[in-house]
Amino acid sequence: MKILIAGMDGYLGWPLSLRLAAHGHTVAVIDAGLRRSWVREVGSHSVIPIASLDERLRAFETLTKQPLKFWSGDLCDYFIAQDSVRAFQPDAIVHLAEMPSAAYSMIDADHAVYAQRNNIIGTLNLLHAIRDEQPSAHLVKLGTMGEYGTPNVQIPEGFFEIEYMGRKDRLPFPRQAGSWYHQSKVHDSNNIMMACKIWNLRSTDIMQGVVYGTRDGAPAADPRFRTRFDFDQCFGTAINRFCAQAVADLAIMPFGSGRQRRGFLPLKDSITCIELALEHPPKMGEYRVINQFEETYEIIELARRVQAAAKEFGISAPIVPVENPRVESESHYYEPQRQILIDWGYNPTRDMAGELRGMFEDLAPHKDRIVEKLHVICPDIRWGGEKKICESLLGDSQ
Amino acid sequence: MKILIAGMDGYLGWPLSLRLAAHGHTVAVIDAGLRRSWVREVGSHSVIPIASLDERLRAFETLTKQPLKFWSGDLCDYFIAQDSVRAFQPDAIVHLAEMPSAAYSMIDADHAVYAQRNNIIGTLNLLHAIRDEQPSAHLVKLGTMGEYGTPNVQIPEGFFEIEYMGRKDRLPFPRQAGSWYHQSKVHDSNNIMMACKIWNLRSTDIMQGVVYGTRDGAPAADPRFRTRFDFDQCFGTAINRFCAQAVADLAIMPFGSGRQRRGFLPLKDSITCIELALEHPPKMGEYRVINQFEETYEIIELARRVQAAAKEFGISAPIVPVENPRVESESHYYEPQRQILIDWGYNPTRDMAGELRGMFEDLAPHKDRIVEKLHVICPDIRWGGEKKICESLLGDSQ
Repeated sequence: MKILIAGMDGYLGWPLSLRLAAHGHTVAVIDAGLRRSWVREVGSHSVIPIASLDERLRAFETLTKQPLKFWSGDLCDYFIAQDSVRAFQPDAIVHLAEMPSAAYSMIDADHAVYAQRNNIIGTLNLLHAIRDEQPSAHLVKLGTMGEYGTPNVQIPEGFFEIEYMGRKDRLPFPRQAGSWYHQSKVHDSNNIMMACKIWNLRSTDIMQGVVYGTRDGAPAADPRFRTRFDFDQCFGTAINRFCAQAVADLAIMPFGSGRQRRGFLPLKDSITCIELALEHPPKMGEYRVINQFEETYEIIELARRVQAAAKEFGISAPIVPVENPRVESESHYYEPQRQILIDWGYNPTRDMAGELRGMFEDLAPHKDRIVEKLHVICPDIRWGGEKKICESLLGDSQ
Repeated sequence: MKILIAGMDGYLGWPLSLRLAAHGHTVAVIDAGLRRSWVREVGSHSVIPIASLDERLRAFETLTKQPLKFWSGDLCDYFIAQDSVRAFQPDAIVHLAEMPSAAYSMIDADHAVYAQRNNIIGTLNLLHAIRDEQPSAHLVKLGTMGEYGTPNVQIPEGFFEIEYMGRKDRLPFPRQAGSWYHQSKVHDSNNIMMACKIWNLRSTDIMQGVVYGTRDGAPAADPRFRTRFDFDQCFGTAINRFCAQAVADLAIMPFGSGRQRRGFLPLKDSITCIELALEHPPKMGEYRVINQFEETYEIIELARRVQAAAKEFGISAPIVPVENPRVESESHYYEPQRQILIDWGYNPTRDMAGELRGMFEDLAPHKDRIVEKLHVICPDIRWGGEKKICESLLGDSQ
């Protein structure tokens, strides 16, 4: 299959590109290097040192023994979207080229506007490029489980059959996202749904759980093939942050009561699921939504699992909840459905302990890179707009 | 009440500003003159000649005998949003400052991006300005009934109670808009709903039907107080286009079968409803949706009513359906609910014949201004992306 990957340089984009090439697909890639800029802007860096974009491209070509088509640019520039789709004529496009941080989008008006502008315009441009240059291409778009919020009913995969006032319809399931970033993904979903309907395009919109981990399978022997690992308040996800905190001899810091429940999945499962979606293209005109996660967990349970894994490495990390910088319900019903991926053969790893061990092995050698940037660990971007460090909820006893 | 009106120079903004000032409110206004630019860009102009922005401001001050606070600028510039809210400290803000055309947003990728960027960013900036400068201000935001699409169940006012898989919740009613413009309003609605929830702001989001007419009540004696009237394929709404077509001795041209059913309301009712919303602010933290229309009509029925009204003025206008440039269902269930405005005392005019007479009286003297721009009347912006004049569906017999 000819697969165009937008956002190749990110946390998922890089291992996905490698996996798809290893499985015999012809890969072309787009990136503007923005993830590196955003992480720099918030004063952080990847714990695991990563190769430069140029080095990655060369390593990729060495591995596949083929030239790699690469567009250096931003999907917000229509020419990049159009030229890449026109020149490469992909069978499928995996769109990962979005700003992925809730906290970053909540910094201030400028960052809220940036998050929505970047994500919405890139997707709109891509939809137009597909319509005009390669309408049969299957758009695989990364959304987030966070689009749904936490409704008091089960969360179906995108659509549900309802009866209202005596009549029935199959309707999109309502979205109630809780940050400007998450809302940008809702807007994308609505835009893609419309494009499929009026232009007869086809897309799989992946409502992805929170991804964690350092590896896609075995650790990469060549350091140029390693993917990035963020631990700051903006770009580090919950489990990843907790592991980095433990490695740096800090407390593990869940937000608030930690009773929030979310879907999670390891990096390698995320890539497997995207690959499964690519192998099962929808029919023309179909907008398909899949919920993608291994299992749901309460955040406090994850903190305890990281604590237990740390112990195996001789690290004694206390769990110290901090004020929740987000405005979110901390105690709620949460029951998302997940059937489509299972039907396609997704066999969840269900080995969080093993994943966590791998993470400690990979992060421990770079402890100094966490310690060097300790200031990015304590959250101070509050959903209310105030910039103020979140205090421990345990009081002076800590 | 101190009321800030963003988009004062538009079709609704101008008569609304005049009405609110006449009813004793202190009005301040924002406008960047964009509506005039967009209409110029598509090669058209207002049938009814309108005063320049400067003349309008001076006429307004003459009428109210008070200086009018005016910000010349774009809400996409955060400084304009922040400065106006900070300086004026409004009790309420009516946000009409959006690009209002479905067809304009469907021209190409650039116009799709422009429509969504302009509308979403302006609203995001305004929400941040309210949060930071005047959080108690009541945001009255103009959305559109088009946000809902045409579901096979009744359309509630924003939210509905449902039972799904044995559990219950009150959820936002799903939106299925059919153009990039309509989607931009869906995105705004989602953003405003979130801001009310996490920032405790308050807003009334008006799902407005299609507005028609030339007057708010009696005809304006002073031509400087008249509002604009568009008839081109982008900025002219259905009934307004039909009247302009009849006045210019053209056929009345509904799209396709004309069996599409939508909510409509006369200009003066639109302004009355906005005023009612201002008089009934929601409580802090509440995001309230109202459906605002006088009645639903099939488009073909409206064409016949315009035809009948034209006859009274000695105009014999045939009805000639043309290919539908839109991708939309032409035969569908449509039953929107409308109760909140009625509870507040909205008494629909229910005198379309009278409204249409007024329109013919106001438009007839400016027939030459329609004839001068005949090229903007036949639709050629097709939802599929092709730019091609929509042909008559009656064949050569016409």
